[in-house]
Amino acid sequence: MGGDFGVPVIVKAAVEYLENNNDTSLILVGNRELIESELGKINSHSNARLKIYHASQCIEMNESPSRALRTKKDSSMRVAINLVKEGIADACVSAGNTGALMATARYVLKTLSGIDRPAIISTIPSIFGHTYMLDLGANIGCSSEHLLQFAVMGAVLASAMDDINNPKVGLLNIGEEEIKGNEQVKKANEMLRQSGLNYIGYVEGGDVYCRDVNVVVCDGFVGNVSLKASEGVAKTISHYIKLEFDRNLFTRFCGLLALPVLKSFSQRIDPRCYNGASLLGLRGVVIKSHGSADAYSFQHAIDIARVEAVKQVPELIDSRIAAYLENSSTQ
Amino acid sequence: MGGDFGVPVIVKAAVEYLENNNDTSLILVGNRELIESELGKINSHSNARLKIYHASQCIEMNESPSRALRTKKDSSMRVAINLVKEGIADACVSAGNTGALMATARYVLKTLSGIDRPAIISTIPSIFGHTYMLDLGANIGCSSEHLLQFAVMGAVLASAMDDINNPKVGLLNIGEEEIKGNEQVKKANEMLRQSGLNYIGYVEGGDVYCRDVNVVVCDGFVGNVSLKASEGVAKTISHYIKLEFDRNLFTRFCGLLALPVLKSFSQRIDPRCYNGASLLGLRGVVIKSHGSADAYSFQHAIDIARVEAVKQVPELIDSRIAAYLENSSTQ
Repeated sequence: MGGDFGVPVIVKAAVEYLENNNDTSLILVGNRELIESELGKINSHSNARLKIYHASQCIEMNESPSRALRTKKDSSMRVAINLVKEGIADACVSAGNTGALMATARYVLKTLSGIDRPAIISTIPSIFGHTYMLDLGANIGCSSEHLLQFAVMGAVLASAMDDINNPKVGLLNIGEEEIKGNEQVKKANEMLRQSGLNYIGYVEGGDVYCRDVNVVVCDGFVGNVSLKASEGVAKTISHYIKLEFDRNLFTRFCGLLALPVLKSFSQRIDPRCYNGASLLGLRGVVIKSHGSADAYSFQHAIDIARVEAVKQVPELIDSRIAAYLENSSTQ
Repeated sequence: MGGDFGVPVIVKAAVEYLENNNDTSLILVGNRELIESELGKINSHSNARLKIYHASQCIEMNESPSRALRTKKDSSMRVAINLVKEGIADACVSAGNTGALMATARYVLKTLSGIDRPAIISTIPSIFGHTYMLDLGANIGCSSEHLLQFAVMGAVLASAMDDINNPKVGLLNIGEEEIKGNEQVKKANEMLRQSGLNYIGYVEGGDVYCRDVNVVVCDGFVGNVSLKASEGVAKTISHYIKLEFDRNLFTRFCGLLALPVLKSFSQRIDPRCYNGASLLGLRGVVIKSHGSADAYSFQHAIDIARVEAVKQVPELIDSRIAAYLENSSTQ
């Protein structure tokens, strides 16, 4: 049981989630003693829908994925993913080391047929609601085939989660003209045109936020940097807003009056409401929560796991990937 | 004379700039008749510090750089860059086609010795003031040598423009750990450690905005996407702020009260104050203004050109690049 704030936050999130969702059962995986002690603190010993599986090890946030895989066979992460593999759990949620989670999930669950590499996908708030973006950091160099596979996975997820028939898919590039981009992107563009997906062509960095597109596909280096840059901008803007309202007595008074409006605005862009990135392309549902998630935020990640399991996202990808890949290669 | 709004905006910017800067002379390059007509409209016929050079052609915003280079030898862009080459002008500012500007500048002015490829650099607002970031889109695939050259150019520019002795240089990556990143980035990291620059190591996407770093180096694909994503986020946040304050009579009243604070905040992140990206690595000063710049914004681009010319940025890069490159290759 990982994350920057560890057991207390996750136990609290689990208990609150169960209170709000009568149809869900949760398994807490980690140090049994610690978990029971936390449950005791919030008087939640006797929930029939809450089980504990003991794990004796914990993967550190900076530990190398290969080392974790080799030496931490009884880590909470490994045990939790084993439960998915064995069909005891329908999904796994972790706030731990992303690289280790990806490596362990890939090793234990395996990728779906037709998928070379799993990708990390998440929703990003946009003027049109939200946009699914992948890959967000699992794959730093991607071939055109990988980008095509990401596109199919993203489209299946968007379609299932948001009940959209034919989600609009865009390919991230540095311009919308056909001549722009590197070789992988240009070739992926051709393949996507033939794939049968609802492909709208190249999109630019700003389009993730300002354009009516459901899925944006890119390699993990670009996706990760662009996501973190965006978080940085939002943080900087919040910093400046606070600074300006805090400048003197008058501005503080203005801020007080504007508080409900500013609060409502903050809720709209609250990153906690977007917590929970999916590891797509695996034979099972695995969700990565932000390491710094609080209990409220962690519940969002649990909820994504629940919905993906109910909608059977891995099975959907499995049933649809072959047709799209065939279109792209035969036409 | 290009840009989305063409001659009127640029003529207005030039006249206003001259009014505020007694030590500067400007040359307007474009259709003489159109320029004179615009000058007539604002009664500015007789400024001794304003000259006009006629150019019979104009490069379209979507025209391919190679075609522009081949067929538009009397375009305003080409004529303006020729003036820099001939020493008649100290710098060139254009709001036109970025690709054509880079191709023409590179062809006419040539790159400095030690520089394989010019890069596009601009300041980005940050919690610590601003950060220089390059490359922002001129080079979509970069070797570690290119990244090192960008770092030197960025450091020289930051040092000259902001009077900093030893600017902090960071290399953009998807994590701060040494094991992360692609091969080019890892190799560039090694070279930068030996370069003699004040290299602080890997930085992440958000650090551009939230960390005390003067220069952030990346390849043009990542830089361009991350810059445009950031603009998209800022736009989305503005959109939501407006939406929330516009919700009903009460929120509008709050907005009215908070107006001075919100205005002051907007000024802080006003993209117009960051207009003007430099094409670094050339034997001359060339500045790209945003295509959609208004007269206020275009003046910022002119001012960057003036300061870079006064500080002799190309000569500074030329005099310093050899030593840094040697450090990186011999140690």
